[in-house]
Amino acid sequence: MPAWKRATISARSFWRWPVARYILHEDPRSGNCYKIKLTAALVGIPLEVRQYDIMAGETRTPEFLGNVNANGRIPVLQIDDRFLPESNAACWYLAEDSALIPNDRFDRADMLRWMFFEQYNHEPNVATLRFWLHFVGEANLSKQQRAQLMAKRIAGCDALSLMDRHLAGRDWFVGGGPTLADIALYAYTHVAEEGGFGLADYPAVEAWLARVAALPRYVAMS
Amino acid sequence: MPAWKRATISARSFWRWPVARYILHEDPRSGNCYKIKLTAALVGIPLEVRQYDIMAGETRTPEFLGNVNANGRIPVLQIDDRFLPESNAACWYLAEDSALIPNDRFDRADMLRWMFFEQYNHEPNVATLRFWLHFVGEANLSKQQRAQLMAKRIAGCDALSLMDRHLAGRDWFVGGGPTLADIALYAYTHVAEEGGFGLADYPAVEAWLARVAALPRYVAMS
Repeated sequence: MPAWKRATISARSFWRWPVARYILHEDPRSGNCYKIKLTAALVGIPLEVRQYDIMAGETRTPEFLGNVNANGRIPVLQIDDRFLPESNAACWYLAEDSALIPNDRFDRADMLRWMFFEQYNHEPNVATLRFWLHFVGEANLSKQQRAQLMAKRIAGCDALSLMDRHLAGRDWFVGGGPTLADIALYAYTHVAEEGGFGLADYPAVEAWLARVAALPRYVAMS
Repeated sequence: MPAWKRATISARSFWRWPVARYILHEDPRSGNCYKIKLTAALVGIPLEVRQYDIMAGETRTPEFLGNVNANGRIPVLQIDDRFLPESNAACWYLAEDSALIPNDRFDRADMLRWMFFEQYNHEPNVATLRFWLHFVGEANLSKQQRAQLMAKRIAGCDALSLMDRHLAGRDWFVGGGPTLADIALYAYTHVAEEGGFGLADYPAVEAWLARVAALPRYVAMS
Protein backbone atom coordinates (compact mmCIF):
# COMPACT_ATOMS: atom_id res chain seq x y z
CA MET A 1 0.00 0.00 0.00
CA PRO A 2 1.44 3.42 -0.95
CA ALA A 3 2.52 5.47 2.03
CA TRP A 4 0.23 8.41 1.34
CA LYS A 5 -2.81 6.18 1.29
CA ARG A 6 -1.86 4.33 4.47
CA ALA A 7 -1.28 7.56 6.40
CA THR A 8 -4.47 9.15 5.18
CA ILE A 9 -6.68 6.24 5.96
CA SER A 10 -5.57 5.81 9.53
CA ALA A 11 -5.60 9.51 10.31
CA ARG A 12 -8.98 10.13 8.81
CA SER A 13 -10.92 7.15 10.01
CA PHE A 14 -10.28 7.61 13.68
CA TRP A 15 -10.07 11.24 14.59
CA ARG A 16 -10.06 13.68 11.77
CA TRP A 17 -13.08 13.30 9.61
CA PRO A 18 -16.03 14.43 11.75
CA VAL A 19 -14.69 17.67 13.16
CA ALA A 20 -13.98 19.92 10.17
CA ARG A 21 -15.94 23.10 9.58
CA TYR A 22 -16.18 24.10 5.91
CA ILE A 23 -16.64 27.70 4.80
CA LEU A 24 -16.83 28.57 1.11
CA HIS A 25 -15.63 32.06 0.24
CA GLU A 26 -17.57 32.75 -2.94
CA ASP A 27 -19.39 34.94 -5.40
CA PRO A 28 -22.62 33.09 -6.27
CA ARG A 29 -22.40 34.19 -9.93
CA SER A 30 -19.17 32.21 -10.35
CA GLY A 31 -19.32 28.77 -11.88
CA ASN A 32 -16.04 27.93 -10.16
CA CYS A 33 -17.76 28.50 -6.80
CA TYR A 34 -20.80 26.53 -7.91
CA LYS A 35 -18.60 23.47 -8.62
CA ILE A 36 -17.69 23.29 -4.96
CA LYS A 37 -21.29 23.70 -3.79
CA LEU A 38 -22.44 20.99 -6.20
CA THR A 39 -19.66 18.61 -5.07
CA ALA A 40 -20.48 19.24 -1.40
CA ALA A 41 -24.19 18.64 -2.04
CA LEU A 42 -23.58 15.41 -3.96
CA VAL A 43 -21.35 13.97 -1.23
CA GLY A 44 -23.49 15.33 1.64
CA ILE A 45 -21.04 17.76 3.27
CA PRO A 46 -22.61 20.94 4.70
CA LEU A 47 -20.93 24.20 3.68
CA GLU A 48 -21.20 27.65 5.20
CA VAL A 49 -20.72 30.51 2.77
CA ARG A 50 -19.16 34.00 2.87
CA GLN A 51 -20.15 36.08 -0.13
CA TYR A 52 -18.00 38.62 -1.97
CA ASP A 53 -18.84 40.84 -4.93
CA ILE A 54 -15.95 40.35 -7.34
CA MET A 55 -17.14 43.23 -9.53
CA ALA A 56 -16.89 45.58 -6.55
CA GLY A 57 -13.31 44.46 -5.86
CA GLU A 58 -14.15 42.67 -2.62
CA THR A 59 -11.56 39.96 -3.30
CA ARG A 60 -8.75 42.52 -3.78
CA THR A 61 -8.92 44.14 -0.35
CA PRO A 62 -5.83 43.91 1.91
CA GLU A 63 -7.86 41.83 4.32
CA PHE A 64 -8.87 39.28 1.67
CA LEU A 65 -5.37 39.15 0.15
CA GLY A 66 -3.76 38.76 3.56
CA ASN A 67 -6.13 36.25 5.13
CA VAL A 68 -8.02 34.33 2.46
CA ASN A 69 -6.11 34.22 -0.85
CA ALA A 70 -3.02 36.18 -1.89
CA ASN A 71 -4.07 35.54 -5.49
CA GLY A 72 -7.18 37.73 -5.00
CA ARG A 73 -9.58 35.16 -6.36
CA ILE A 74 -12.59 33.20 -5.25
CA PRO A 75 -13.53 30.46 -4.64
CA VAL A 76 -11.53 29.55 -1.56
CA LEU A 77 -12.56 26.60 0.57
CA GLN A 78 -11.79 27.22 4.23
CA ILE A 79 -11.32 24.01 6.22
CA ASP A 80 -11.21 25.00 9.88
CA ASP A 81 -8.42 27.61 9.84
CA ARG A 82 -6.76 26.57 6.56
CA PHE A 83 -7.54 28.05 3.15
CA LEU A 84 -7.63 26.13 -0.11
CA PRO A 85 -7.90 28.18 -3.35
CA GLU A 86 -8.59 26.77 -6.82
CA SER A 87 -12.02 25.30 -7.43
CA ASN A 88 -10.94 21.90 -8.70
CA ALA A 89 -8.55 21.37 -5.78
CA ALA A 90 -11.38 22.17 -3.36
CA CYS A 91 -13.67 19.70 -5.15
CA TRP A 92 -10.94 17.05 -4.86
CA TYR A 93 -10.63 17.69 -1.10
CA LEU A 94 -14.37 17.33 -0.50
CA ALA A 95 -14.78 14.25 -2.71
CA GLU A 96 -11.80 12.17 -1.58
CA ASP A 97 -13.95 9.64 0.27
CA SER A 98 -16.66 9.41 -2.36
CA ALA A 99 -17.49 7.66 -5.63
CA LEU A 100 -16.92 10.99 -7.41
CA ILE A 101 -13.25 9.97 -7.56
CA PRO A 102 -12.84 6.72 -9.55
CA ASN A 103 -11.36 3.54 -8.09
CA ASP A 104 -9.25 2.80 -11.14
CA ARG A 105 -5.81 4.43 -11.30
CA PHE A 106 -6.05 5.33 -14.99
CA ASP A 107 -9.59 6.67 -14.61
CA ARG A 108 -8.52 8.78 -11.62
CA ALA A 109 -5.74 10.41 -13.65
CA ASP A 110 -8.09 10.71 -16.63
CA MET A 111 -10.56 12.56 -14.39
CA LEU A 112 -7.78 15.01 -13.50
CA ARG A 113 -7.00 15.29 -17.21
CA TRP A 114 -10.52 16.62 -17.89
CA MET A 115 -10.28 18.94 -14.87
CA PHE A 116 -7.04 20.45 -16.21
CA PHE A 117 -8.65 20.68 -19.67
CA GLU A 118 -11.50 22.56 -18.04
CA GLN A 119 -9.21 25.15 -16.49
CA TYR A 120 -6.97 25.52 -19.55
CA ASN A 121 -9.23 25.15 -22.60
CA HIS A 122 -12.78 25.70 -21.36
CA GLU A 123 -12.96 28.18 -18.48
CA PRO A 124 -10.72 30.92 -20.01
CA ASN A 125 -13.02 30.97 -23.04
CA VAL A 126 -16.54 29.83 -22.10
CA ALA A 127 -16.55 31.40 -18.62
CA THR A 128 -14.69 34.55 -19.63
CA LEU A 129 -17.09 35.29 -22.48
CA ARG A 130 -20.03 34.73 -20.10
CA PHE A 131 -18.46 37.14 -17.62
CA TRP A 132 -17.69 39.77 -20.25
CA LEU A 133 -21.00 39.59 -22.14
CA HIS A 134 -23.50 38.70 -19.38
CA PHE A 135 -22.09 40.60 -16.39
CA VAL A 136 -19.71 43.32 -17.64
CA GLY A 137 -21.63 44.03 -20.86
CA GLU A 138 -20.13 44.26 -24.35
CA ALA A 139 -20.32 48.06 -24.37
CA ASN A 140 -18.14 48.22 -21.27
CA LEU A 141 -15.31 45.99 -22.52
CA SER A 142 -11.83 47.39 -22.97
CA LYS A 143 -10.30 47.56 -26.44
CA GLN A 144 -8.02 44.70 -25.48
CA GLN A 145 -10.92 42.53 -24.30
CA ARG A 146 -12.84 43.30 -27.46
CA ALA A 147 -9.83 42.21 -29.54
CA GLN A 148 -9.96 38.80 -27.88
CA LEU A 149 -13.68 38.10 -28.41
CA MET A 150 -13.29 36.18 -31.65
CA ALA A 151 -10.36 34.03 -30.49
CA LYS A 152 -12.20 33.14 -27.28
CA ARG A 153 -15.38 32.35 -29.23
CA ILE A 154 -13.46 29.94 -31.48
CA ALA A 155 -11.55 28.33 -28.61
CA GLY A 156 -14.75 27.96 -26.55
CA CYS A 157 -16.53 26.29 -29.48
CA ASP A 158 -13.51 23.99 -29.93
CA ALA A 159 -13.74 22.96 -26.25
CA LEU A 160 -17.50 22.30 -26.50
CA SER A 161 -17.01 20.39 -29.73
CA LEU A 162 -14.31 18.19 -28.19
CA MET A 163 -16.63 17.48 -25.25
CA ASP A 164 -19.47 16.64 -27.65
CA ARG A 165 -17.37 14.15 -29.60
CA HIS A 166 -16.09 12.58 -26.37
CA LEU A 167 -19.61 12.21 -24.97
CA ALA A 168 -21.08 10.67 -28.13
CA GLY A 169 -21.91 7.12 -27.07
CA ARG A 170 -21.00 7.53 -23.42
CA ASP A 171 -22.88 8.88 -20.41
CA TRP A 172 -20.01 10.39 -18.37
CA PHE A 173 -16.58 11.81 -19.05
CA VAL A 174 -14.68 9.03 -17.27
CA GLY A 175 -15.70 5.45 -16.54
CA GLY A 176 -19.26 4.38 -15.85
CA GLY A 177 -20.53 7.05 -13.49
CA PRO A 178 -20.33 10.73 -12.59
CA THR A 179 -16.97 12.02 -11.35
CA LEU A 180 -15.44 15.39 -10.55
CA ALA A 181 -14.66 15.72 -14.27
CA ASP A 182 -18.39 15.99 -14.94
CA ILE A 183 -18.92 18.49 -12.13
CA ALA A 184 -15.99 20.67 -13.20
CA LEU A 185 -17.14 20.77 -16.82
CA TYR A 186 -20.84 21.12 -15.99
CA ALA A 187 -20.44 24.37 -14.05
CA TYR A 188 -19.77 26.74 -16.94
CA THR A 189 -21.17 24.55 -19.74
CA HIS A 190 -24.73 24.62 -18.42
CA VAL A 191 -24.70 28.44 -18.47
CA ALA A 192 -22.65 28.76 -21.68
CA GLU A 193 -25.59 30.38 -23.49
CA GLU A 194 -25.07 33.41 -21.25
CA GLY A 195 -21.73 33.71 -23.05
CA GLY A 196 -23.35 33.45 -26.46
CA PHE A 197 -22.64 29.74 -27.08
CA GLY A 198 -25.50 27.81 -28.69
CA LEU A 199 -25.75 24.48 -26.88
CA ALA A 200 -28.13 23.06 -29.51
CA ASP A 201 -25.01 22.60 -31.67
CA TYR A 202 -23.74 20.03 -29.15
CA PRO A 203 -26.45 17.38 -28.68
CA ALA A 204 -24.31 14.91 -26.70
CA VAL A 205 -23.38 17.75 -24.35
CA GLU A 206 -27.05 18.69 -23.92
CA ALA A 207 -28.00 15.10 -23.06
CA TRP A 208 -25.11 14.90 -20.57
CA LEU A 209 -26.15 18.20 -18.93
CA ALA A 210 -29.59 16.67 -18.33
CA ARG A 211 -27.98 13.59 -16.75
CA VAL A 212 -25.96 15.74 -14.35
CA ALA A 213 -29.05 17.77 -13.41
CA ALA A 214 -30.91 14.54 -12.63
CA LEU A 215 -28.33 13.29 -10.10
CA PRO A 216 -29.62 12.61 -6.58
CA ARG A 217 -28.92 15.60 -4.27
CA TYR A 218 -28.17 17.87 -7.27
CA VAL A 219 -28.45 21.56 -6.45
CA ALA A 220 -28.98 24.30 -9.02
CA MET A 221 -26.69 27.32 -9.39
CA SER A 222 -28.16 30.19 -7.39
CA MET B 1 -10.93 2.83 3.94
CA PRO B 2 -12.42 4.71 0.96
CA ALA B 3 -13.54 2.45 -1.85
CA TRP B 4 -11.25 3.95 -4.49
CA LYS B 5 -8.18 3.36 -2.38
CA ARG B 6 -9.13 -0.22 -1.52
CA ALA B 7 -9.74 -1.14 -5.15
CA THR B 8 -6.56 0.51 -6.36
CA ILE B 9 -4.32 -1.09 -3.82
CA SER B 10 -5.47 -4.63 -4.42
CA ALA B 11 -5.46 -4.31 -8.21
CA ARG B 12 -2.05 -2.70 -8.37
CA SER B 13 -0.15 -4.74 -5.87
CA PHE B 14 -0.80 -8.11 -7.40
CA TRP B 15 -0.96 -7.91 -11.16
CA ARG B 16 -0.94 -4.49 -12.64
CA TRP B 17 2.05 -2.52 -11.56
CA PRO B 18 5.03 -4.23 -13.20
CA VAL B 19 3.70 -4.68 -16.71
CA ALA B 20 2.96 -1.17 -18.02
CA ARG B 21 4.89 0.30 -20.92
CA TYR B 22 5.10 4.10 -20.87
CA ILE B 23 5.52 6.17 -24.03
CA LEU B 24 5.67 9.95 -23.83
CA HIS B 25 4.42 11.75 -26.95
CA GLU B 26 6.34 15.01 -26.73
CA ASP B 27 8.13 18.01 -28.16
CA PRO B 28 11.37 18.35 -26.17
CA ARG B 29 11.11 22.18 -26.22
CA SER B 30 7.90 22.00 -24.18
CA GLY B 31 8.07 22.51 -20.42
CA ASN B 32 4.80 20.60 -20.10
CA CYS B 33 6.55 17.56 -21.59
CA TYR B 34 9.60 18.07 -19.39
CA LYS B 35 7.43 17.91 -16.24
CA ILE B 36 6.53 14.35 -17.09
CA LYS B 37 10.13 13.35 -17.83
CA LEU B 38 11.29 14.92 -14.56
CA THR B 39 8.55 13.16 -12.58
CA ALA B 40 9.38 9.82 -14.20
CA ALA B 41 13.09 10.30 -13.47
CA LEU B 42 12.50 11.24 -9.82
CA VAL B 43 10.30 8.20 -9.18
CA GLY B 44 12.44 5.85 -11.29
CA ILE B 45 10.01 4.93 -14.08
CA PRO B 46 11.55 4.44 -17.53
CA LEU B 47 9.83 6.32 -20.37
CA GLU B 48 10.08 5.81 -24.11
CA VAL B 49 9.54 8.94 -26.18
CA ARG B 50 7.94 9.79 -29.54
CA GLN B 51 8.91 13.25 -30.70
CA TYR B 52 6.72 15.69 -32.65
CA ASP B 53 7.51 19.16 -33.97
CA ILE B 54 4.60 21.31 -32.80
CA MET B 55 5.76 24.22 -34.98
CA ALA B 56 5.52 22.00 -38.06
CA GLY B 57 1.94 20.99 -37.17
CA GLU B 58 2.83 17.41 -36.34
CA THR B 59 0.25 17.28 -33.51
CA ARG B 60 -2.57 18.42 -35.82
CA THR B 61 -2.40 15.57 -38.33
CA PRO B 62 -5.47 13.32 -38.71
CA GLU B 63 -3.39 10.44 -37.39
CA PHE B 64 -2.38 12.30 -34.20
CA LEU B 65 -5.91 13.70 -33.65
CA GLY B 66 -7.48 10.31 -34.20
CA ASN B 67 -5.07 8.11 -32.25
CA VAL B 68 -3.19 10.18 -29.68
CA ASN B 69 -5.13 13.31 -28.64
CA ALA B 70 -8.24 14.80 -30.22
CA ASN B 71 -7.21 18.11 -28.61
CA GLY B 72 -4.12 18.27 -30.88
CA ARG B 73 -1.68 18.88 -28.05
CA ILE B 74 1.33 17.30 -26.49
CA PRO B 75 2.31 15.96 -24.02
CA VAL B 76 0.34 12.77 -23.99
CA LEU B 77 1.42 9.90 -21.76
CA GLN B 78 0.67 6.55 -23.35
CA ILE B 79 0.24 3.73 -20.82
CA ASP B 80 0.15 0.49 -22.78
CA ASP B 81 -2.67 1.22 -25.26
CA ARG B 82 -4.33 4.07 -23.36
CA PHE B 83 -3.60 7.76 -23.85
CA LEU B 84 -3.51 10.38 -21.09
CA PRO B 85 -3.27 14.05 -22.17
CA GLU B 86 -2.60 17.01 -19.85
CA SER B 87 0.84 17.21 -18.30
CA ASN B 88 -0.23 17.48 -14.69
CA ALA B 89 -2.60 14.51 -14.95
CA ALA B 90 0.25 12.44 -16.42
CA CYS B 91 2.55 13.49 -13.55
CA TRP B 92 -0.14 12.44 -11.07
CA TYR B 93 -0.44 9.02 -12.73
CA LEU B 94 3.30 8.37 -12.57
CA ALA B 95 3.72 9.65 -9.00
CA GLU B 96 0.77 7.94 -7.31
CA ASP B 97 2.95 5.49 -5.40
CA SER B 98 5.64 7.98 -4.47
CA ALA B 99 6.46 10.64 -1.89
CA LEU B 100 5.86 13.27 -4.59
CA ILE B 101 2.18 13.10 -3.55
CA PRO B 102 1.79 14.08 0.13
CA ASN B 103 0.34 11.79 2.77
CA ASP B 104 -1.77 14.50 4.36
CA ARG B 105 -5.21 15.08 2.87
CA PHE B 106 -5.00 18.88 3.02
CA ASP B 107 -1.47 18.92 1.60
CA ARG B 108 -2.54 16.63 -1.24
CA ALA B 109 -5.36 19.01 -2.23
CA ASP B 110 -3.02 21.99 -1.70
CA MET B 111 -0.57 20.38 -4.12
CA LEU B 112 -3.35 20.16 -6.70
CA ARG B 113 -4.16 23.80 -5.92
CA TRP B 114 -0.67 24.85 -7.05
CA MET B 115 -0.89 22.58 -10.10
CA PHE B 116 -4.16 24.26 -11.15
CA PHE B 117 -2.59 27.66 -10.43
CA GLU B 118 0.27 26.65 -12.71
CA GLN B 119 -2.04 25.84 -15.61
CA TYR B 120 -4.31 28.87 -15.12
CA ASN B 121 -2.07 31.71 -13.93
CA HIS B 122 1.48 30.70 -14.83
CA GLU B 123 1.66 28.63 -18.01
CA PRO B 124 -0.60 30.84 -20.20
CA ASN B 125 1.68 33.79 -19.41
CA VAL B 126 5.21 32.59 -18.62
CA ALA B 127 5.21 29.68 -21.09
CA THR B 128 3.32 31.51 -23.81
CA LEU B 129 5.73 34.48 -23.76
CA ARG B 130 8.67 32.06 -23.90
CA PHE B 131 7.10 30.33 -26.90
CA TRP B 132 6.29 33.58 -28.69
CA LEU B 133 9.59 35.36 -28.01
CA HIS B 134 12.10 32.49 -27.96
CA PHE B 135 10.70 30.14 -30.60
CA VAL B 136 8.29 32.07 -32.84
CA GLY B 137 10.18 35.38 -32.64
CA GLU B 138 8.63 38.77 -31.88
CA ALA B 139 8.81 39.85 -35.53
CA ASN B 140 6.63 36.89 -36.53
CA LEU B 141 3.82 37.45 -34.02
CA SER B 142 0.33 38.26 -35.22
CA LYS B 143 -1.24 41.62 -34.41
CA GLN B 144 -3.50 39.88 -31.90
CA GLN B 145 -0.55 38.18 -30.18
CA ARG B 146 1.34 41.46 -30.05
CA ALA B 147 -1.66 43.13 -28.41
CA GLN B 148 -1.49 40.58 -25.58
CA LEU B 149 2.22 40.92 -24.80
CA MET B 150 1.81 43.52 -22.04
CA ALA B 151 -1.07 41.76 -20.29
CA LYS B 152 0.80 38.45 -20.35
CA ARG B 153 3.96 40.14 -19.06
CA ILE B 154 2.06 41.61 -16.09
CA ALA B 155 0.18 38.38 -15.35
CA GLY B 156 3.40 36.35 -15.58
CA CYS B 157 5.17 38.70 -13.17
CA ASP B 158 2.17 38.47 -10.82
CA ALA B 159 2.45 34.67 -10.85
CA LEU B 160 6.20 34.74 -10.16
CA SER B 161 5.71 37.32 -7.43
CA LEU B 162 3.03 35.22 -5.73
CA MET B 163 5.38 32.22 -5.87
CA ASP B 164 8.22 34.30 -4.43
CA ARG B 165 6.13 35.47 -1.47
CA HIS B 166 4.88 31.94 -0.84
CA LEU B 167 8.42 30.51 -0.91
CA ALA B 168 9.88 33.14 1.44
CA GLY B 169 10.72 31.15 4.55
CA ARG B 170 9.86 27.75 3.15
CA ASP B 171 11.74 25.23 1.02
CA TRP B 172 8.89 23.66 -0.99
CA PHE B 173 5.43 24.67 -2.15
CA VAL B 174 3.56 22.19 0.04
CA GLY B 175 4.61 20.50 3.27
CA GLY B 176 8.19 19.58 4.08
CA GLY B 177 9.45 18.06 0.85
CA PRO B 178 9.23 18.21 -2.92
CA THR B 179 5.87 17.35 -4.49
CA LEU B 180 4.32 17.49 -7.93
CA ALA B 181 3.52 21.16 -7.21
CA ASP B 182 7.24 21.91 -7.31
CA ILE B 183 7.76 19.92 -10.50
CA ALA B 184 4.80 21.51 -12.28
CA LEU B 185 5.94 25.03 -11.38
CA TYR B 186 9.64 24.35 -11.96
CA ALA B 187 9.22 23.39 -15.61
CA TYR B 188 8.50 26.82 -17.09
CA THR B 189 9.90 28.91 -14.23
CA HIS B 190 13.47 27.71 -14.68
CA VAL B 191 13.39 28.80 -18.34
CA ALA B 192 11.33 31.96 -17.74
CA GLU B 193 14.22 34.17 -18.82
CA GLU B 194 13.70 32.84 -22.36
CA GLY B 195 10.35 34.63 -22.12
CA GLY B 196 11.97 37.84 -20.93
CA PHE B 197 11.26 37.42 -17.20
CA GLY B 198 14.12 38.44 -14.90
CA LEU B 199 14.43 35.81 -12.21
CA ALA B 200 16.79 37.96 -10.13
CA ASP B 201 13.66 39.87 -9.08
CA TYR B 202 12.44 36.75 -7.29
CA PRO B 203 15.18 35.56 -4.90
CA ALA B 204 13.08 32.98 -3.06
CA VAL B 205 12.14 31.49 -6.42
CA GLU B 206 15.81 31.36 -7.46
CA ALA B 207 16.77 29.55 -4.26
CA TRP B 208 13.93 27.08 -4.75
CA LEU B 209 14.96 26.44 -8.38
CA ALA B 210 18.40 25.46 -7.09
CA ARG B 211 16.83 23.08 -4.54
CA VAL B 212 14.82 21.34 -7.28
CA ALA B 213 17.88 21.02 -9.52
CA ALA B 214 19.78 19.38 -6.63
CA LEU B 215 17.23 16.59 -6.12
CA PRO B 216 18.55 13.04 -6.46
CA ARG B 217 17.83 11.64 -9.96
CA TYR B 218 17.05 15.14 -11.30
CA VAL B 219 17.29 15.38 -15.08
CA ALA B 220 17.79 18.63 -17.01
CA MET B 221 15.48 19.78 -19.79
CA SER B 222 16.93 18.67 -23.11
